[in-house]
Amino acid sequence: YGRFGLDWNEANDVAGALDNTDATNITSRFRLTFDVSTETDGGVTVGGRIRAQAENRDGAQGRATFSSPQFHVAYGGLRVNVGNIWGAIDSAPGLYLNTTSVGTGIDGMGFNSLAIKGAGFDTFTSAGVGRGGIEAIYSAGGFTGHVSYSKQNGTAGTSTDANGVERTALMLNYSFGDYFVTGAYQSADNGRTITKGGVAVEADDDVIFLAGGADFGQFGATLQLAQTEEADSVTLAGEAEVGAASTVIAWVNSTDIDTGVTAGQTVTDGTAFGINYEYDLGGGVTFVAGYVNTAADDNDNSVQAGLHFSF
Amino acid sequence: YGRFGLDWNEANDVAGALDNTDATNITSRFRLTFDVSTETDGGVTVGGRIRAQAENRDGAQGRATFSSPQFHVAYGGLRVNVGNIWGAIDSAPGLYLNTTSVGTGIDGMGFNSLAIKGAGFDTFTSAGVGRGGIEAIYSAGGFTGHVSYSKQNGTAGTSTDANGVERTALMLNYSFGDYFVTGAYQSADNGRTITKGGVAVEADDDVIFLAGGADFGQFGATLQLAQTEEADSVTLAGEAEVGAASTVIAWVNSTDIDTGVTAGQTVTDGTAFGINYEYDLGGGVTFVAGYVNTAADDNDNSVQAGLHFSF
Amino acid sequence: YGRFGLDWNEANDVAGALDNTDATNITSRFRLTFDVSTETDGGVTVGGRIRAQAENRDGAQGRATFSSPQFHVAYGGLRVNVGNIWGAIDSAPGLYLNTTSVGTGIDGMGFNSLAIKGAGFDTFTSAGVGRGGIEAIYSAGGFTGHVSYSKQNGTAGTSTDANGVERTALMLNYSFGDYFVTGAYQSADNGRTITKGGVAVEADDDVIFLAGGADFGQFGATLQLAQTEEADSVTLAGEAEVGAASTVIAWVNSTDIDTGVTAGQTVTDGTAFGINYEYDLGGGVTFVAGYVNTAADDNDNSVQAGLHFSF
Repeated sequence: YGRFGLDWNEANDVAGALDNTDATNITSRFRLTFDVSTETDGGVTVGGRIRAQAENRDGAQGRATFSSPQFHVAYGGLRVNVGNIWGAIDSAPGLYLNTTSVGTGIDGMGFNSLAIKGAGFDTFTSAGVGRGGIEAIYSAGGFTGHVSYSKQNGTAGTSTDANGVERTALMLNYSFGDYFVTGAYQSADNGRTITKGGVAVEADDDVIFLAGGADFGQFGATLQLAQTEEADSVTLAGEAEVGAASTVIAWVNSTDIDTGVTAGQTVTDGTAFGINYEYDLGGGVTFVAGYVNTAADDNDNSVQAGLHFSF
Repeated sequence: YGRFGLDWNEANDVAGALDNTDATNITSRFRLTFDVSTETDGGVTVGGRIRAQAENRDGAQGRATFSSPQFHVAYGGLRVNVGNIWGAIDSAPGLYLNTTSVGTGIDGMGFNSLAIKGAGFDTFTSAGVGRGGIEAIYSAGGFTGHVSYSKQNGTAGTSTDANGVERTALMLNYSFGDYFVTGAYQSADNGRTITKGGVAVEADDDVIFLAGGADFGQFGATLQLAQTEEADSVTLAGEAEVGAASTVIAWVNSTDIDTGVTAGQTVTDGTAFGINYEYDLGGGVTFVAGYVNTAADDNDNSVQAGLHFSF
Repeated sequence: YGRFGLDWNEANDVAGALDNTDATNITSRFRLTFDVSTETDGGVTVGGRIRAQAENRDGAQGRATFSSPQFHVAYGGLRVNVGNIWGAIDSAPGLYLNTTSVGTGIDGMGFNSLAIKGAGFDTFTSAGVGRGGIEAIYSAGGFTGHVSYSKQNGTAGTSTDANGVERTALMLNYSFGDYFVTGAYQSADNGRTITKGGVAVEADDDVIFLAGGADFGQFGATLQLAQTEEADSVTLAGEAEVGAASTVIAWVNSTDIDTGVTAGQTVTDGTAFGINYEYDLGGGVTFVAGYVNTAADDNDNSVQAGLHFSF
């Protein structure tokens, strides 16, 4: 798909990290997906996927680059992926918003609506080298179970026996009628650490994510809760269809960093909120506009508007 | 498309920049274009383009790389491009030669026929990161108007408020019967400078380009004039169809650098000329040969011959 | 095509080069080939090929990258390639095994079955910049002749007149009934050197390769001999079809480094052997398993198993 629009972000013209950038920039993405598959005589599907994606953000142009590939073997309700996996946490229903960007605005606008923000978890990398792993997904009736495992080589040099980050995650989802519930858990080793109570703690270990939602056609709502070693966080999102072609989604997130954490924080303590508006123009083209207020003290406002089209 | 051939260039085996290179090398290019578009219910076309291109020149092999994407919205005679734009100057009829390389020989051979050579202007970048901008093109009858704007982030570091190069260009073209006239102008800020009369001057600001041409079927001619802060330049090109499948284009360019310019020159003062021969082999395959004599004092000769094929 | 599987390699968890890696890793490759061609009115085919390929090995993830392009002109039994050529040595029948990886296991497992291992020769580079050259291939009846030439720019800097590596290779093959014989020779200049008898010698010059084989349907065998400045090497491979869908190939290689060679060796003196098993699952999917024992003294065992699928 392609998407492009204008991004006005206060934080893009502030002394420091992005001061050589205007507040208003083009934001865009162009994504080509190459999906291939074949079927053995025994009815097992074997296939692969690779993507090429270009992104332009914050005044910086990007050329498209290919991703690492994902391979799969599927039979009945079971699918096993190898390589650039999706990740059990990232696939949890209720984690992302029901929008074209799965966040707010054209490009997600920082994905501040995720209760789990700040934590590291496996996800399909669309442009560039991804994490390598293996995962199994099983669906039957309203039930979906998903377990993923990834590991990386050590970064401490080739003369030590120190291997790299390992992540194991489990996700369970059950949908019944207009409702769904999701639970997910991640265990991690050899990853980044935060200082908590004076001790170094694995930041992405013992991550818990819970979500539940209801969709009554014209109106819907989702509640998500996350607990990491760093923070507790809760997000409430509400959705309304307006007229024949418009959808509005509004969300508010509250994040509470553990008082014992003194170094290594990746999220901001406080309340963030946003609103996303979409209008279906037909032919796979959607007008999208979004507003986000982050939990930062200053320069916390940004607005985006543009088009998203499928191909 | 693809194109490949042999390039003999005196300057490629001269002490200095390219002395580890033979004078004779393969020159080639392979270009894949991915064009996508869709149409809204209101009849507006929304689409995008991305390219992957590989070039081999001067004995150096290149792998293909993707470009930055271009997005467009079009309705009737109006088209708006966002991202990796074409640029109003680069789109001026009369600027490039009417050959497969839009210059001389297989790979353009330095595009010495451009009266505007040496000036920086926006152009679609086919392999790699391009400039980010927005442009509008309107066509009605024989008239075309084109205005483009691009900007970049500052390069002086993120702790200063210095933003980067901005270019605004306007192009007007009118075609009537066998004739056309083109005028274009570019204004630029925060770009490269030359020293002129002891003062630093924006090199790519106040660029003026004028062209006119006539095409009487078997014979044609184009005259182009350019004035930049650095130089005045004029190119005359003549075209003749020979027999059923051959075309010959010959050109001569005279460039006169402003005597006040003491540093930052990007063009050579003097006269350059060239000739291009093409023979249509059918099936989209064209035999192309070219000879160029640049305005340099020494090692100013180069010859190319090869094939260009469309796919 | 795509291929993926598990690789267990003792040498991947040994103090030194790969100690931050587990012994067991995913090995995979995803290859997209873009082939284009057209035909002139005179019946000459003109075309090009480019690839994008991603590989994951030894715990390191890779994204896909494009190759340099190859261009060709073909007429009757003659084909001329320009650019990223195949190379006459690399195209010699009998050099590679008759398996999906043309070596052992999923990813070739080091291609220890090649009698010519350690020598540098031209080959089509599928991901990244290749060598630039030109080659001609002529086939008539059971006879194939192949001559290739490549050169590179010098690497000693642009202020010297030192040009880079040049390779010229010739390959002749004749097939008659169930038998074939192949002979190939390479001459090289300005390449890497080894120290032999106290003197620096061009390592890839004067390379001789001979192969012969027979295929009686269910059983087949190939013998290959290679002589380089560094070593003499011989490989015997046997092939058997087992049942309707299985194929087993076993090989043994003996390499004898010249006693005068004191520096620059790229192969290990001694005996290596391996076995490859393939089972055709239908739909272009093949189960592949392989075992290799290299000529190294320690950590010389590796095993791979996985799937290969065509698309």
